[in-house]
This record gives sequence, structure tokens and C-alpha cells, in this order.
Amino acid sequence: MAFDLQGWMQPHLLRVEQALSGGIDPAAPAGLGDAMRYAVLDGGKRLRPLLVLAAAEATGAPTLAAALRAACAVELIHAYSLVHDDMPCMDNDVLRRGKPTVHVQFGQAQALLAGDALQALAFELLTPLDGSVPPAVQAACVGLLARASGYWGMAGGQAIDLASVGGQLSEDQLRQMHRLKTGALLLCSVQMGVACGAVISEQTRAAFNRFGEVLGLAFQVVDDILDVTADSATLGKTAGKDAAADKPTYVALMGLQAAQRYADELAGEAMQALADTGLPPEQLTALQGLASMVVQRNH
Amino acid sequence: MAFDLQGWMQPHLLRVEQALSGGIDPAAPAGLGDAMRYAVLDGGKRLRPLLVLAAAEATGAPTLAAALRAACAVELIHAYSLVHDDMPCMDNDVLRRGKPTVHVQFGQAQALLAGDALQALAFELLTPLDGSVPPAVQAACVGLLARASGYWGMAGGQAIDLASVGGQLSEDQLRQMHRLKTGALLLCSVQMGVACGAVISEQTRAAFNRFGEVLGLAFQVVDDILDVTADSATLGKTAGKDAAADKPTYVALMGLQAAQRYADELAGEAMQALADTGLPPEQLTALQGLASMVVQRNH
Repeated sequence: MAFDLQGWMQPHLLRVEQALSGGIDPAAPAGLGDAMRYAVLDGGKRLRPLLVLAAAEATGAPTLAAALRAACAVELIHAYSLVHDDMPCMDNDVLRRGKPTVHVQFGQAQALLAGDALQALAFELLTPLDGSVPPAVQAACVGLLARASGYWGMAGGQAIDLASVGGQLSEDQLRQMHRLKTGALLLCSVQMGVACGAVISEQTRAAFNRFGEVLGLAFQVVDDILDVTADSATLGKTAGKDAAADKPTYVALMGLQAAQRYADELAGEAMQALADTGLPPEQLTALQGLASMVVQRNH
Repeated sequence: MAFDLQGWMQPHLLRVEQALSGGIDPAAPAGLGDAMRYAVLDGGKRLRPLLVLAAAEATGAPTLAAALRAACAVELIHAYSLVHDDMPCMDNDVLRRGKPTVHVQFGQAQALLAGDALQALAFELLTPLDGSVPPAVQAACVGLLARASGYWGMAGGQAIDLASVGGQLSEDQLRQMHRLKTGALLLCSVQMGVACGAVISEQTRAAFNRFGEVLGLAFQVVDDILDVTADSATLGKTAGKDAAADKPTYVALMGLQAAQRYADELAGEAMQALADTGLPPEQLTALQGLASMVVQRNH
């Protein structure tokens, strides 16, 4: 019987949404909680949280308590990066997930603070005070998320992106930019899930890392394809933006058809990496399904 | 013999500066490391790092390895908050520590990213991968710093500050704003130092918390006084800014003389809190000296 990805996703998405909503205090000072909730709730595919949960289940996490916190944390980091990325001094975008961006809705100063506070909240969620997550797991997840978010991760990738607008990047440079800007957080999602699971061999860990890296690359290639082929309503953000801004993309570099073939190749590599973990196939079905979804998505 | 605060500070400051410089990779992508180093190095009183180290020594930390990381982490959070606070959409300030602010020097987009990456780096420093800091200490420090930086800490205080410009705050509201905006990070500095030290009684911990709270309040009252009485060259930032922006301050609320008396009162309360820790007086001299410095500083 084929794996029912939607059937797996539905209860997991529900738990993520509930945890995110319960995790952001609406009473935070001076409307800051409202701006943060606006940035995070009622939108987003929650791909990163689902990867955390699927990886934790694949590696036999005893409960999802720690993984659910990691799932929310990585989504808060993702959400804050979108808030700051949309600001006038960065991409100056007014539409996100079909809604006005945070700075349009709440003003630039509040958007800046909401992004800052979302980053802090991610690390707060990873370090509960109630003893529900072992300190070693807390420390491991913080270490992974901080590195994936920082200057040798997402923020560094965005700096390269900024510096490259209108310029020419080689395929290697483009790959480096995306490995940091988008890939690091996707890889980190898999790694945090694994950190919440049972002890595994170094070979299994390496295979999961490979899976996370390839998935991150595939995600970006598909993103570049969608920027050209989808419309704004489907994307929930401004389509054709990268092309208009003369940003380097895989489509610009290799053409649309070759980019599509490349995405399919990467999907195959991701499946192979999962097989290389050596874990029983029935434990890997959710991760397989999510990887397929990344390549086949239309928004 | 009177305690030689300068003699204590000199080697500790040196270690902090070396650790900060060694902790921010200049090779980070697309000039991001340069902007981050510019924001952090060659400036700042390093009050928060010194509080961490003094509190760790007071409570018998076996080595300063963990405390030095916590000292750098809280300074990175402080530095990022200044970078973002100076941006045009916030305070729009062009001078900081006698130098052009980060967005003036590197552009707004890079300043935004540098601030974001400094926050991430703070949590990276708290979670070394080399086994030099016990996971429980890592988790404790991350938990303290994340909460002190976030929406119920520094970021929340800044949101109140933004919302209050031109308005009237009561003394209670003003105290709440500063407790979050400035006080949370100063209290956190003491708490992280204590977390790096030996096990202490609940009574001792409570006294340290009281010390950190009162010190934070005293710091802000003196800040408000200096905004009125010092010139820009001495402050290293634009003097008279709060008054010009019609921001609520203790001076505006209670008058200059009463504010000065209040600062002295708070200094006395801080010394009492230290005595209430029940620790041997010779272990508390550095914290006493730092508290005096906060109240007597001229910049």
C-alpha cells in the first residue's frame, strides 16, 4: 500500500500549528506579540517543521515533545527571515503568503523588532525550563539552529544574495549562496529531528546529512523554476521577482528545461541518501513523501 | 586595603576583547563578518561581559571558560540591539561610540543582516561543540539569554519605547519599559555568571537576582541623567537625544536632582543585595566595584 502523505501530514500539521499558536504570547508588550503572530500563524507550508518531526520519528524519538519544540523553533527562524527580507532596505516586498507583509501592516520599526524577537523566541522554545527536554538535546538543537541561522548559514547566504544582484555568479557560487541561504535551515531541520531521536551510527547520521543537503538544493532549484512558471496568486508572493531584479537563479544559469531535469536528479539523490541510512524503509516513508513534495510542489 | 577595580578589570577586559575578536570570523560571506566586527570591536564599556565574569568568580566558577562565552554572547546581543536601534526606521542615529553607525558605514541591508547574524552568533558561542562547557550550563545560559533578549525582555522593552514616544508614561510604566529594555540584559549577565559558578542556595540566588534587577534600574536612571548632563563627545553618542525626541525619562518624570538621589539610593540597594547573598565579602568586591562604576560613570 502506498504511503498516505496527506494522512501523515494532517495530524502533524495540526500539532505544529497548535504549538506555534500556543508558543507566541499575544499579550507581549506594545503589540509586539500581535506582529509576531501575524508573521507566523495562518500561513506557510511548514515544510521545515514537518521535516523535523519526520526525522525524529524516523530515528525513533521516544516522544515528539523535543521535536515539536525544534519544529516550531526552525519555523520561527524562517518566519523572522521573511519579515526582515521583505523590508524596504532588503527586497521591499509588499505581499507574502497572500497577505500584506509585516512592515506594511505594522510599520518598519515594529517589523524589525518582531523579527528580532522571533529569533530570540526560537531559542527560548528550544530551552524549556520544565525538564521536558534533556539538557544535552537542548544544547544540540541550539547549536545546530544557531549555526544554520548565522553568518555561515542563512544570514551569510542572504549577504551573498544582496551582494550578487545584477552580477554574474558561477554555478559553484550560486550553489554556495543557496546552500547557506535556504539549504542550511532545511538541513538543520533534518539534523534537529535526528538529534531528538535515538542514538544512531555515524554512517546513518552522514546519510541523513546528505539527504538534508540535497533536499535543500532541490528546494531552491524548484523555487527558481516556480519564480518563472507560477503566478503570484498561486505562489502567495510576487512572482517573477528574481528575474525582474536580475538575481542569479538556476533558471537564468542553465535554462528552464535543464533546471527541471536537475531538480528531478536531486530528488533521486535524496531518495538514495535515505536508503543509505540503513534504517527500515517503513520508518522513512514520511521523509520520502516530503522530499517528493518539495520537488513536485507548485507553490 | 581598598579593592583595585581597575586592576581587576584590565586582565578581564583583555580576555573579553580577545574572545570577541576571535569569536567573530572576519572571513564570513560578502563582508558580513566585517560589518559584525565593526559593530562589536574597538568600543563599548563591556559592562555586561564584566558582570558575567564577576558573578562567575563570586560564585566560585571552576574556570572562566563557560563564563567567557556567556560574556561574549551577552555583548553580541547588546551590540546587535544597538545596530538595529540606530537604523533609520528606529532611532535614525548616525553616531555610536564616536564612529559612524553600522548602517551609515555598510548600508541598511547589511546592517540589518549583521544584527541578525550577531544574535545567532551569541547562541552559537553559548553552545561550543568541543565539550568545554557542560550541556546543562549551555542550556541554562541559552534559556536565560533568549528570554532576556526577546519579547518579554529587551525587544519588548524597545517596542514599549517606540510606542511611548511623545506620550505620557507613569513611573510604573517607565520602570516596566526599562526593566525590559535595559534591565533584562544586565540581570541576565549576573544570572549567566551565576549559572557558570558553583551550586548556591536559593537565598543566595534570590539575592543575586535582586542585585541584577536594582543594578539594571540604576543603570537606566544614570543613562537618563547623562543624556541631559553630558556632551556627545564624552558619551560617544548623540547627547540630548531623548529629550529632543520627547521620550519619557526619569529626568523628565522626577527632575534632575531627584533622579540623582534615586540613582544613589539604588546603588545602596545593590550593595545590600550583595551582602544578602551571604557569600564572603572578598568574593563580592568586583561586583561591588562594577555597581559603583555604573552609578558614578560619566559616559
